[in-house]
Amino acid sequence: MSKVKMIADNLPNIPWEDKPEGYHAPVWRHSQNPVIDRNPAKDISRIFNSAVIPYEGKFIGVFRAETTNGRPHLHLGYSDDALDWTIEEERIEFVNEAGEPFQPNYAYDPRLLKVEDTYYIIWCTDFYGAAIGLAETKDFKTFTRLENPFLPFNRNGVLFPRKINGNYVMMSRPSDSGHTPFGDIFLSESPDLVYWGKHRHVMTGEGAEGWWQNVKIGGGPAPIETSEGWLVFYHGVTGTCNGLVYSMGVAILDIDEPSKVKYRSKNFVLTPEESYETTGFVDNVIFPCATLHDAETGKIAIYYGSADTRVGLAYTTVDEIVEYTKATHEAVPGDSEIGKM
Amino acid sequence: MSKVKMIADNLPNIPWEDKPEGYHAPVWRHSQNPVIDRNPAKDISRIFNSAVIPYEGKFIGVFRAETTNGRPHLHLGYSDDALDWTIEEERIEFVNEAGEPFQPNYAYDPRLLKVEDTYYIIWCTDFYGAAIGLAETKDFKTFTRLENPFLPFNRNGVLFPRKINGNYVMMSRPSDSGHTPFGDIFLSESPDLVYWGKHRHVMTGEGAEGWWQNVKIGGGPAPIETSEGWLVFYHGVTGTCNGLVYSMGVAILDIDEPSKVKYRSKNFVLTPEESYETTGFVDNVIFPCATLHDAETGKIAIYYGSADTRVGLAYTTVDEIVEYTKATHEAVPGDSEIGKM
Amino acid sequence: MSKVKMIADNLPNIPWEDKPEGYHAPVWRHSQNPVIDRNPAKDISRIFNSAVIPYEGKFIGVFRAETTNGRPHLHLGYSDDALDWTIEEERIEFVNEAGEPFQPNYAYDPRLLKVEDTYYIIWCTDFYGAAIGLAETKDFKTFTRLENPFLPFNRNGVLFPRKINGNYVMMSRPSDSGHTPFGDIFLSESPDLVYWGKHRHVMTGEGAEGWWQNVKIGGGPAPIETSEGWLVFYHGVTGTCNGLVYSMGVAILDIDEPSKVKYRSKNFVLTPEESYETTGFVDNVIFPCATLHDAETGKIAIYYGSADTRVGLAYTTVDEIVEYTKATHEAVPGDSEIGKM
Amino acid sequence: MSKVKMIADNLPNIPWEDKPEGYHAPVWRHSQNPVIDRNPAKDISRIFNSAVIPYEGKFIGVFRAETTNGRPHLHLGYSDDALDWTIEEERIEFVNEAGEPFQPNYAYDPRLLKVEDTYYIIWCTDFYGAAIGLAETKDFKTFTRLENPFLPFNRNGVLFPRKINGNYVMMSRPSDSGHTPFGDIFLSESPDLVYWGKHRHVMTGEGAEGWWQNVKIGGGPAPIETSEGWLVFYHGVTGTCNGLVYSMGVAILDIDEPSKVKYRSKNFVLTPEESYETTGFVDNVIFPCATLHDAETGKIAIYYGSADTRVGLAYTTVDEIVEYTKATHEAVPGDSEIGKM
Amino acid sequence: MSKVKMIADNLPNIPWEDKPEGYHAPVWRHSQNPVIDRNPAKDISRIFNSAVIPYEGKFIGVFRAETTNGRPHLHLGYSDDALDWTIEEERIEFVNEAGEPFQPNYAYDPRLLKVEDTYYIIWCTDFYGAAIGLAETKDFKTFTRLENPFLPFNRNGVLFPRKINGNYVMMSRPSDSGHTPFGDIFLSESPDLVYWGKHRHVMTGEGAEGWWQNVKIGGGPAPIETSEGWLVFYHGVTGTCNGLVYSMGVAILDIDEPSKVKYRSKNFVLTPEESYETTGFVDNVIFPCATLHDAETGKIAIYYGSADTRVGLAYTTVDEIVEYTKATHEAVPGDSEIGKM
Amino acid sequence: MSKVKMIADNLPNIPWEDKPEGYHAPVWRHSQNPVIDRNPAKDISRIFNSAVIPYEGKFIGVFRAETTNGRPHLHLGYSDDALDWTIEEERIEFVNEAGEPFQPNYAYDPRLLKVEDTYYIIWCTDFYGAAIGLAETKDFKTFTRLENPFLPFNRNGVLFPRKINGNYVMMSRPSDSGHTPFGDIFLSESPDLVYWGKHRHVMTGEGAEGWWQNVKIGGGPAPIETSEGWLVFYHGVTGTCNGLVYSMGVAILDIDEPSKVKYRSKNFVLTPEESYETTGFVDNVIFPCATLHDAETGKIAIYYGSADTRVGLAYTTVDEIVEYTKATHEAVPGDSEIGKM
Repeated sequence: MSKVKMIADNLPNIPWEDKPEGYHAPVWRHSQNPVIDRNPAKDISRIFNSAVIPYEGKFIGVFRAETTNGRPHLHLGYSDDALDWTIEEERIEFVNEAGEPFQPNYAYDPRLLKVEDTYYIIWCTDFYGAAIGLAETKDFKTFTRLENPFLPFNRNGVLFPRKINGNYVMMSRPSDSGHTPFGDIFLSESPDLVYWGKHRHVMTGEGAEGWWQNVKIGGGPAPIETSEGWLVFYHGVTGTCNGLVYSMGVAILDIDEPSKVKYRSKNFVLTPEESYETTGFVDNVIFPCATLHDAETGKIAIYYGSADTRVGLAYTTVDEIVEYTKATHEAVPGDSEIGKM
Repeated sequence: MSKVKMIADNLPNIPWEDKPEGYHAPVWRHSQNPVIDRNPAKDISRIFNSAVIPYEGKFIGVFRAETTNGRPHLHLGYSDDALDWTIEEERIEFVNEAGEPFQPNYAYDPRLLKVEDTYYIIWCTDFYGAAIGLAETKDFKTFTRLENPFLPFNRNGVLFPRKINGNYVMMSRPSDSGHTPFGDIFLSESPDLVYWGKHRHVMTGEGAEGWWQNVKIGGGPAPIETSEGWLVFYHGVTGTCNGLVYSMGVAILDIDEPSKVKYRSKNFVLTPEESYETTGFVDNVIFPCATLHDAETGKIAIYYGSADTRVGLAYTTVDEIVEYTKATHEAVPGDSEIGKM
Repeated sequence: MSKVKMIADNLPNIPWEDKPEGYHAPVWRHSQNPVIDRNPAKDISRIFNSAVIPYEGKFIGVFRAETTNGRPHLHLGYSDDALDWTIEEERIEFVNEAGEPFQPNYAYDPRLLKVEDTYYIIWCTDFYGAAIGLAETKDFKTFTRLENPFLPFNRNGVLFPRKINGNYVMMSRPSDSGHTPFGDIFLSESPDLVYWGKHRHVMTGEGAEGWWQNVKIGGGPAPIETSEGWLVFYHGVTGTCNGLVYSMGVAILDIDEPSKVKYRSKNFVLTPEESYETTGFVDNVIFPCATLHDAETGKIAIYYGSADTRVGLAYTTVDEIVEYTKATHEAVPGDSEIGKM
Repeated sequence: MSKVKMIADNLPNIPWEDKPEGYHAPVWRHSQNPVIDRNPAKDISRIFNSAVIPYEGKFIGVFRAETTNGRPHLHLGYSDDALDWTIEEERIEFVNEAGEPFQPNYAYDPRLLKVEDTYYIIWCTDFYGAAIGLAETKDFKTFTRLENPFLPFNRNGVLFPRKINGNYVMMSRPSDSGHTPFGDIFLSESPDLVYWGKHRHVMTGEGAEGWWQNVKIGGGPAPIETSEGWLVFYHGVTGTCNGLVYSMGVAILDIDEPSKVKYRSKNFVLTPEESYETTGFVDNVIFPCATLHDAETGKIAIYYGSADTRVGLAYTTVDEIVEYTKATHEAVPGDSEIGKM
Repeated sequence: MSKVKMIADNLPNIPWEDKPEGYHAPVWRHSQNPVIDRNPAKDISRIFNSAVIPYEGKFIGVFRAETTNGRPHLHLGYSDDALDWTIEEERIEFVNEAGEPFQPNYAYDPRLLKVEDTYYIIWCTDFYGAAIGLAETKDFKTFTRLENPFLPFNRNGVLFPRKINGNYVMMSRPSDSGHTPFGDIFLSESPDLVYWGKHRHVMTGEGAEGWWQNVKIGGGPAPIETSEGWLVFYHGVTGTCNGLVYSMGVAILDIDEPSKVKYRSKNFVLTPEESYETTGFVDNVIFPCATLHDAETGKIAIYYGSADTRVGLAYTTVDEIVEYTKATHEAVPGDSEIGKM
Repeated sequence: MSKVKMIADNLPNIPWEDKPEGYHAPVWRHSQNPVIDRNPAKDISRIFNSAVIPYEGKFIGVFRAETTNGRPHLHLGYSDDALDWTIEEERIEFVNEAGEPFQPNYAYDPRLLKVEDTYYIIWCTDFYGAAIGLAETKDFKTFTRLENPFLPFNRNGVLFPRKINGNYVMMSRPSDSGHTPFGDIFLSESPDLVYWGKHRHVMTGEGAEGWWQNVKIGGGPAPIETSEGWLVFYHGVTGTCNGLVYSMGVAILDIDEPSKVKYRSKNFVLTPEESYETTGFVDNVIFPCATLHDAETGKIAIYYGSADTRVGLAYTTVDEIVEYTKATHEAVPGDSEIGKM
């Protein structure tokens, strides 16, 4: 039983490996990474930056699949153990609220989560430039697109797994239409998933001491509700003369006022070091998109895109990561208050 | 009485000059331009890109004032005839909904309009970058800031002068945080001015034949309701090796589905030609922000920023501008349908 | 009778003004400049960078006309005195060699000259980016497009007014598809105006001492044949923190090997100084495109685009300009030999 | 005997490996890649982007060799089996048509092919910027430079292996002087290899559905004549936040009007996946420059530069690649007509 | 007699005009500006950004002269009244310490001042990029270059008019080699004008509230010693979508620790407004380089470059400017302490 | 005993491996590279670009340590054999000359050397941008910061190991504040380590034939005094479409006039080829910072940063490297004279 309480379901079949002997850092890699490697299905060249969820005792996922024409789409995948995945060769077919086909021109970096009895997919869609797309499904057979929550240009939309103060809450990272060299995390609320407002700033990478997140940051997996607050994994980006480097960071947001950052580690908790992370279509990328987690034991399995080429898996526990976040907390100006409007 | 019906108030004291003899274009300049020139008040260096409205039989305006420290703020101004303006030396003091002082770090390019019994100011505010600020007043004494309608980065927010299908409607131009080289006009709806959604694309500058608007476009004065649709003046921007050039264009939107463009002139209707437009803090800028208009006669007086330095005034009539817009209409792909989401 | 012999026709009705008292420079402005100002015809906003030629005892010209939609096209114009011009409201209609309509998407910066009994128009056309377009006419009624001489990206094509060593010869300025920050003048030959080769480098702006031409250079009017060589006016461009400045320079090329530069002035001979040159759609541009010249007297009238907005006129004589070019000659490496291939 | 007829010589000693079991894609790698690795000869640091050809029963090649001073030159190489290569330590010595030494300042990305009884080398040369160089040899002892076919800036010149309609035909990729972020393939004709014209656009990467070629494309090996048309392998480039990725594509051009694209796969047929392709002087580059092919069996061996560091080899057959190209054909606007001039 | 004491010579023949009636700002323009206009001498196209000093009862100056080849050099000029200037046609000839000719490749933006019995010229010179050049003269006939004080890249070197704590002191603005978009003012000391050290930061434009100086700042005239501290005029630069705008600011430095800023106005005190300032080779530039000042009356005459084209003159008094600087003082972090090393 | 005499101490315990059989190049790698790999100490993610020195019969070093927050600082390390290093977990604590704590905001790329009886650390520090920091220690316990030698922006400061002509001498590489695409090596002198002057240009990468150093160059280890001159290893940088590549070059400077380059190899002597050099936080970087060398045998051990991730070690001998430098000498204009001021 973990000391920090996780408000979530039990997940006894979560994939798991204990922390290796002598390893210091709070997050450790699955020993058989990558979980999904190049060319995982016919005409699919690479899968990465994808989201998985428990479903009917097994696991289901929405995967960013780069086909051999180079354009990203979302594909479903299935697994009994969350390690060995079967990816569908055909992309997910979306419909509009009238049930008519409504396919995005491209779709990437999906998140997947359940609020009440509905599953939501959030992804980066083409709305005259990069914007946040949103769809719902109850059965993973019919996928209905809802209104795009925000104007372009935006990416990394992450819905919270429950309403807060009666409203749906979504993190996003407004930006521009290219390989954006800036970007902070904001929160927005909606009573109905149609109209959004009460936009608040959550946190910035630039203002923090750490250089690993000084170019931009963006939300990752759906936040995990804990007795200490919302546990948030996110990506932080720094620049070098040879391109960007994406690492994973961690923060804890206030339960009722999630634009307040209670704790935030000044350090990355995972940075590209293994060859499957440092070399690929885009070198040096760790991009977390989903967690599996078990309330009973506090185990957390983090799924992350690796070099825009593969899916990696890493582990931590709620006790270890919360303790680390508090121990390495850095007070960044503006973090601890309700976000500026 | 104009042939095209304008659904608006009469304004018999609208400033006016008839079209000069032999002048061909559909919009003509006030002969005593600029209406407001450099150094119009103590410590105010330049006034431009500003909005005026009839008020209690006279006129009132919200002005972008660049003080001698170079930072823009909003100041009130008063006029009996809408030509000779007295500008307040102190900036407008905003409060939040609790009545506490809530001053923006900077504020520029205001629009000003009345919906039902309330006046709304919309401007470009600092929300971790350029974003749309919104405030209301009933008496031009207390100015209460409402929620920022959208996430950054956005500019050129323009509210429609009445609700459509029960919702408030706002045009805006999402973009990035710098001197953006791209940008289209979008529409969004809100039931309550707090939560916004149903975002739709209205029109793009890039896809049109005309080069004068091929870099970006942005909304201008509040739309004028007419029997032909919403009459919209906007700015279009093109690029040269020595910088950008801002001209004024015109379009007519569907009354009930304003993301449909019924007509749109392929030509600019005013482009920088006079020295007060071609030379200043930023050369070659015509930036319309407000109209006065008289339903009885169909007269329209357009207030525009001139070279980021002065306020200019130009005239047209609803009959002439609507006829010109239809006569020079260019069918741009996507314009005539409900905007893509 | 000039000392330097001009191999050209007499043109007794050349427009002319003597050099003002006390004026030192070798080229002087027409006192009633601009010859063509803004809004010279209905729906034509600006005319500039245009070429004129004597025709049937009067004058004819091909003009870059920016219509009110901002896109440039070529229009004909007529004049009795080469000062007062009537511009046609409709653009030139081109046909292909089969006589079918073949209109360029846009056309700008025309040159116009006669080789043997045919008039040639050369302009910047759209061939998947900026490229050189070529057409011929014998009567200024039928304009037949010939093959584009070169691959994109190229501008400032200038044909020589006679064949040299049996081949047509054209100067051009290869570059890229935008506001190119580099560019030298090259020569190419063709036996038939279809196939082009023997490409040679003529001269560079960057290698010269003068900073006025250190960004790029480009050919101007058709070369004038003289007893000293081909007299060439060209534009040279320098950069400032607020944009580019275009001035006019002069060089003399070897008669039989025109890739050899015999003389080249280190100085500009005209630079933007008058308000119609320093202010306009693009500030600070002098862009020569054509000369009229009289063999009998040696008078030369130079037509130049002014601030991408107007047409200016300047004067010199063959004796004065040749003497100045020799007196201010600067030996630039590579200039004096046959151009490198 | 292949179903698709290849109009070419038999080459029984072509290097060959059959397609591996269970491998789906139409092109497969040589199992002992790279064929040429780092430091293949004294003072030669890397060889890549190079062309080979059968010669006197064995094989000869022209290789892009980066010496230890970092500047690229062309070196000859010899092989009995087209797998094990001996590279000459001295660079190829070129002469001009008078037989005098005429060495390029640098030379890279050679193509090598035979038209009638002459071998032609085409490369990227220094003509005041990147341009196409051309030389001929009959004996691989004397290499005579011909006129540069085009003005700068151009790369990826590829001559067809026979005249078409009486003219030599060359593909090229006009561009600018740096790391060009744009570029399409054009065709040009010449009666004599001196004068070139009838320039036509062939195809663009940007307009195609596939993102793998959305930055630029460029010709590769000499086209292979088949009963279905000219079989063309080319490279397509896409951009990421950490740089460009070069993949290989395939198209089939009309035999008599090769600016018409009959078929073109929407997919890449080889993309960087192996460590010798993803890591090197320039990561993630596959750059095909030559094929060996055997008319009898339809076997095709494709030589490609790998990460600007090594030479790789891949295989396909004319039947398989033609079928794949047709099966994955994408109708791109403009492809199927004679190219626009 | 001024209230603020100026520690300087009397200069009864200082040029002067009283402040116009009703004019509010602390600095006012000479009514006959520009003092030097275009083409002031043969082959000199423009003079601007230049420095003058009293000399033998009259005035002498070192002028930035742009010749007709576009390259800047330094020329001497003479005047009886400091208003009507005669510029030498030949440039200043510099020698090295051995008396041998030692001419800079180019020279611009000179400052000129006297320390003890020697006159020093400081300018921007070519030392493998922009750097600070230094020369001395006692008679304005022999000009001896001293060591360049600093490594490149640097501009706007300004020597103080006396030693402080036994050392020479120089302000400078380190930067890069182009049109630098950043730059702060630093101080350095030297015991002997050969070796320089104790570098201290003085002030930044970016950190101040005013946007008029948010791109970069640079020193102007030699500081004026007063009873309140060193009175410093400087230029501050802001950016627009059409280029930079240079205004003039004012600060007062501590007498003994001049890296301490005692007062600094948040406002500009002169910004481009007149046509000779807003239009020219570079629009919108006011660039102060020298003052004349009279201890007896406290009059100050400020010479400034205008649009990189002309020399302008403005007036203030030591009392008025010091009072204004104190009244509009803005406490910028770091200003008030000894500059960080 | 080496033929070329090294004026240095004997170092019998220098780490060493003989050159491998059949290896041609003058510098060869340590077979057990990297000497220091990722995660060498708790919370230190990467060590690279670091300097070592013999100390009390063993070895000591100053290491660039990137902690898990991504910010670089300097840490001490100790080794008995210069191969197996123990890195301190706490950063070096600097004091000012008054003994008060004076910690840099960041510190990177240290050099370490001894002049007379004092050890000096030179690094890149934050002085309103990248600048050279300098500190001294006698015991590796107290580290006292001295004045920053130069104004920003500068990097790669390297002190010579003895005074020349009575002055301290330092190489540096002035530049700008970002990932500079230009930079040459300069020399400066100081009598006292406080005031610096007599700045001279040493050499440029751009002017040399080799492309491997055509973007920028920078000093590396402290120069080694030899009978042939100062032996200098340095880094040279070239650019590709996917980023920069850093190689190692070698030059020999005149003993008494070290701004004279006596010999300079046109070739790199080490370029990224091994996976620990081609892949890491920044791919393709070899960055030499220190040598150990033994006068008795002429052995030289070169420590270099590898891919901004690890420390590599390579070997040569003074005889071999001097002979190679002379044999591959390239006469670059300006190299052989006293550097221009």
